[in-house]
Amino acid sequence: MSAALETFGAQLEAWRARMEGALERRLPRADEVPERLHAAMRYSVLGGGKRVRPILLLATARTLGLSEEQVEAAACALELVHVYSLVHDDMPAMDDDDLRRGRPTCHKAYDEATALLVGDALQSLAFGLLARDPALPADPAARVRLVGLLADAIGSLGMAGGQAIDLESEGAKLGIEEVERMHSLKTGALIRASVMMGAACRSGLEEAAERALAGFAGPIGLAFQIQDDLLDVLGDTATLGKAAGADRAHEKSTHPSILGIPASQERVRRLHQQALESLAPFGRDADVLRAVTEWLLARQN
Amino acid sequence: MSAALETFGAQLEAWRARMEGALERRLPRADEVPERLHAAMRYSVLGGGKRVRPILLLATARTLGLSEEQVEAAACALELVHVYSLVHDDMPAMDDDDLRRGRPTCHKAYDEATALLVGDALQSLAFGLLARDPALPADPAARVRLVGLLADAIGSLGMAGGQAIDLESEGAKLGIEEVERMHSLKTGALIRASVMMGAACRSGLEEAAERALAGFAGPIGLAFQIQDDLLDVLGDTATLGKAAGADRAHEKSTHPSILGIPASQERVRRLHQQALESLAPFGRDADVLRAVTEWLLARQN
Repeated sequence: MSAALETFGAQLEAWRARMEGALERRLPRADEVPERLHAAMRYSVLGGGKRVRPILLLATARTLGLSEEQVEAAACALELVHVYSLVHDDMPAMDDDDLRRGRPTCHKAYDEATALLVGDALQSLAFGLLARDPALPADPAARVRLVGLLADAIGSLGMAGGQAIDLESEGAKLGIEEVERMHSLKTGALIRASVMMGAACRSGLEEAAERALAGFAGPIGLAFQIQDDLLDVLGDTATLGKAAGADRAHEKSTHPSILGIPASQERVRRLHQQALESLAPFGRDADVLRAVTEWLLARQN
Repeated sequence: MSAALETFGAQLEAWRARMEGALERRLPRADEVPERLHAAMRYSVLGGGKRVRPILLLATARTLGLSEEQVEAAACALELVHVYSLVHDDMPAMDDDDLRRGRPTCHKAYDEATALLVGDALQSLAFGLLARDPALPADPAARVRLVGLLADAIGSLGMAGGQAIDLESEGAKLGIEEVERMHSLKTGALIRASVMMGAACRSGLEEAAERALAGFAGPIGLAFQIQDDLLDVLGDTATLGKAAGADRAHEKSTHPSILGIPASQERVRRLHQQALESLAPFGRDADVLRAVTEWLLARQN
């Protein structure tokens, strides 16, 4: 077991190293005009991050027998979109955070106007990769599916919508159903997309397999957010690489603040179980996804 | 001639009415959660605007024998992206404008966080339409071309890059080549995309026709921006629907500020001529594009 965990730790590091290179090659060079914008894009994307969404996509791809080369560009698109949302979320008009991944946030290291444009340009770059990146499967229908999944996951009925609900509800007492709906959009949608975009890279995937993956992705998306909120309560700033206790400072309604810590941990365990059950049809092929899930829901940062 | 102009005026109004309906149907309803975000998206997109980019696309489509129904969703995507850029550009971190199309800007009518999310969500919605809208030609290869053209036009090597250069150069004295490069990205790229996305909707378009349209789109993009800068100098706030003289107030380098007004007007006339020459191969089929060009480069607001 300990050997398996060690192997999995090495796998995570290998995936992160792959993503660092893959992102680096796809970002505009820092000496290309406009240099300051490109430097800020690279600063925000490279050199850190857990790469949760790319790793979920890479693991889904392996479960379905796809190579990492075939899906690498889609994994980059996910991470670029995730980073864009962090850069905008950190701005003074939103969460007003100074620290991210242990470094000054983009608008602190550069300026607000640049941070605004960094987020905007990262979003465009993500869609551009899905349309044009030569490493993706050439099948245009697969590319169209990828664009559609990503657009749905991050628009006003996805991630951006979840952030809007989050902002509107600061200081308000939300019920647990409202919190779950908000989380389902704010972080859940992109986590689900990470799995479903992996599936979309595989042309001719049977409907039953797609349904099984959807059944896996839903609970994971929610459980991941609850775990994040638990870490915000239980963690410390040094381990998190961002300010701990931020939710309480912003009076945000979260699972821990409504249900308490033990009930929230129990909810994560149940969602984890539910996710694993959905993977049953894949047999041993999904072992890598099981390991990723274990890692996601037991993480300390 | 006056009858033709009257007819063309009616055509512009018909196109605008079509776009208003087409955008209205594609925006999330204002009573859909998150209501405030959706209301702000609708506020920003509907009820105004010249709809220059959609009209260029619709005219290109007619030149190529495509129906308005077939390209309407692509025209919506262009306008959504244009509006996203205005909403972000108006924010305090960028141009800090209070007035747009004669009404309070989005962050004034709502708030900064909402304006940030409005822009983000409009960009996602635009790409979502290109991937999913049932009105577009079903050919996935055409959709992929559309996504690629739009992404290239608005990213850090397109519109967002042009805005970054514009910001960096405030207060600096630019040469005319630098100004033209900045404009070629900031507004030119999306104007060019308006024409080329019309072409991308037509499957099997001959390469010569595509080249001719590219030869038309380039000069139009630049001439449109110079005309905009001339109007900023010559116009008044009531006619423009936004603050006149804003460029001088921001000490921006523009064609009029570098070359003077008569030489800038001459540059517009030459680019106009160059654009018209590129349309020659289309014969009378391109009359509608010629009329649109005339309208764009002779406009007073």
